[in-house]
Amino acid sequence: MAPAPLAPGSTIGILGGGQLGRMIALAAAPLGLKAHIYAPDAASPAFDVAAAHTVGAYDDEEALARFAKSVDVVTYEFENVPAETARLVASHAPLFPGEKALATTQDRLTEKSFVRDLGLPTPNFAAVDDRASMAAAVGAIGRPAVLKTRRFGYDGKGQTLVREGVALDAALGLMNGQPAILEAFVPFRAEVSVVAARGRDGAFAAWDVVENRHENHILRSSHVPASIKSETAASALAIARKIGQALDYVGVFAVELFLVDGPTGERVVVNEIAPRVHNSGHWTIEGAETSQFEQHVRAIAGWPLGSTVTRGRVTMTNLLGAEAERWREILAEPGSALHLYGKGAPAPGRKMGHVTRVERD
Amino acid sequence: MAPAPLAPGSTIGILGGGQLGRMIALAAAPLGLKAHIYAPDAASPAFDVAAAHTVGAYDDEEALARFAKSVDVVTYEFENVPAETARLVASHAPLFPGEKALATTQDRLTEKSFVRDLGLPTPNFAAVDDRASMAAAVGAIGRPAVLKTRRFGYDGKGQTLVREGVALDAALGLMNGQPAILEAFVPFRAEVSVVAARGRDGAFAAWDVVENRHENHILRSSHVPASIKSETAASALAIARKIGQALDYVGVFAVELFLVDGPTGERVVVNEIAPRVHNSGHWTIEGAETSQFEQHVRAIAGWPLGSTVTRGRVTMTNLLGAEAERWREILAEPGSALHLYGKGAPAPGRKMGHVTRVERD
Repeated sequence: MAPAPLAPGSTIGILGGGQLGRMIALAAAPLGLKAHIYAPDAASPAFDVAAAHTVGAYDDEEALARFAKSVDVVTYEFENVPAETARLVASHAPLFPGEKALATTQDRLTEKSFVRDLGLPTPNFAAVDDRASMAAAVGAIGRPAVLKTRRFGYDGKGQTLVREGVALDAALGLMNGQPAILEAFVPFRAEVSVVAARGRDGAFAAWDVVENRHENHILRSSHVPASIKSETAASALAIARKIGQALDYVGVFAVELFLVDGPTGERVVVNEIAPRVHNSGHWTIEGAETSQFEQHVRAIAGWPLGSTVTRGRVTMTNLLGAEAERWREILAEPGSALHLYGKGAPAPGRKMGHVTRVERD
Repeated sequence: MAPAPLAPGSTIGILGGGQLGRMIALAAAPLGLKAHIYAPDAASPAFDVAAAHTVGAYDDEEALARFAKSVDVVTYEFENVPAETARLVASHAPLFPGEKALATTQDRLTEKSFVRDLGLPTPNFAAVDDRASMAAAVGAIGRPAVLKTRRFGYDGKGQTLVREGVALDAALGLMNGQPAILEAFVPFRAEVSVVAARGRDGAFAAWDVVENRHENHILRSSHVPASIKSETAASALAIARKIGQALDYVGVFAVELFLVDGPTGERVVVNEIAPRVHNSGHWTIEGAETSQFEQHVRAIAGWPLGSTVTRGRVTMTNLLGAEAERWREILAEPGSALHLYGKGAPAPGRKMGHVTRVERD
């Protein structure tokens, strides 16, 4: 039986205590919902805005069970929630997005196969487990190609470019013996993403396609609207809708795509799926009628989705490492919205906050 | 010596745990600030979104001192903070708005005298302490007039209309022996308010004048822009600026005014001053570039004030008592922003939440 929609006063359990969990909790409060954060780190930024928190490991079955029993729904801010954790939690409380979304997106090989099986465009790929499969993969896909660990990669971690001349053994060595995937390198003109939501009732709502700029594999800035044709945008949204449906998804998710120029014009190719609120959707807090965080809460609560109308031309810029020290200057810019995540040390490349600028139409 | 501006990571102490404290805490978090709420009620809604809270009485000197020492600045969500509490807190941490704002606005007689002494328009008034001063006041001011307790009145509590024929003893009896004030009844066409902020450096910023509709003395809805002439709006803003300056004010405050039609056209008359964020400023969360809550945080932190530009035609409607049960219907209206305060029982007239609707220009 499908779980009942939440009533105001209910508590949302969130696995993960970083900035995404924090912004989900901040969006839940105005809707009359409480947040309970579960995270291993006692200094988790999300704890500061939640009614309750549990410091616990993701394999602490007793703490997880206690947590799940104390809340009305559970969600998560990161895709690497262990399958056993998800299963345990789901046995005590409704878990949204569900286990299928996690299982599909945690492993790049499973994810790419899922996308291909849906008939959606994705780079050629092949599993790489050892020297023999590596050689076969390079033979089939050609170079340049990108070798990635199948699991636990983010912000460019666990991946390497295999160009002409790169020794296959050396590339394989960088995988540290982990199962890997070789993907054809896509000569993209731009990177775009679709941030979308699917309700418990199957309702689908997406924001405008976002254009993303990366530096050192880390998101630098997001721009809306993206510089793409309206047919291309429509095709990107259709891809996201199909993925959401096939995953029986509930909540907000992002599909990262490459924009490629080809003989028949521009087209999009699916890069990866993030089963959670996404950095490329932070602009929606000020730039859209409903933020991705509120939308995620609405979806997992079993509530109607909100309007995703964009409010102007929007730029979201991440504040990485010491860039957050510019906070005072940003505060003094009329119309700029500062977001600091309440993290401790500004390590290089660490996402410390972001700033959103909306130019009204 | 003036206290230093706060650094991100600092903690704001808030006296009072209702919806105003809650919304201040929710606005502080994106700026990288923590909130510590001090309130007597263990079920205070603001506790749910704060990094820390203390359940304590406003005369518990030990708990107050511990609280004030643990934070970097203290503010409050209600004007009836006892003078002793304010003094104690201010001896351990910077208190904004300061004691002068509290002392001036807690007592209607002091407040009205302050406004009159600034040369600003306010209804005629006189102190009423007993039968003799009551008779003298009615003689001087005439009828109809409004008899109010000097302290602790809000939402029409502690006040009564003295029309022709009302027995003065009966009216006085309703004051329960408290010191009172008789004010001339103002035949207003509308009620408006100015919500404004003043920074630690004396910078002043106000939002557009708000038109307010009351029912049973409780705010029903706020509308921006107000249906008033631009000269009248300018005069209302000038009044607020003068009051802010005279109070050496730091933070957000509201000035409630009557809009009166007279032989020389429309004009405004000061009704009262609220030394805090105000219900008639809730529309700024979605309706302006900076919300009153973020602005209050910026001001008390010693930071630059944000832009007060309005984003369209805005209506804010309070959800009183059982009206909050309409939450699902409101969630389904495109572009409506629902705010529920996380309170328990929906007693009649109790402010349970509000909804803001912005029509973009």
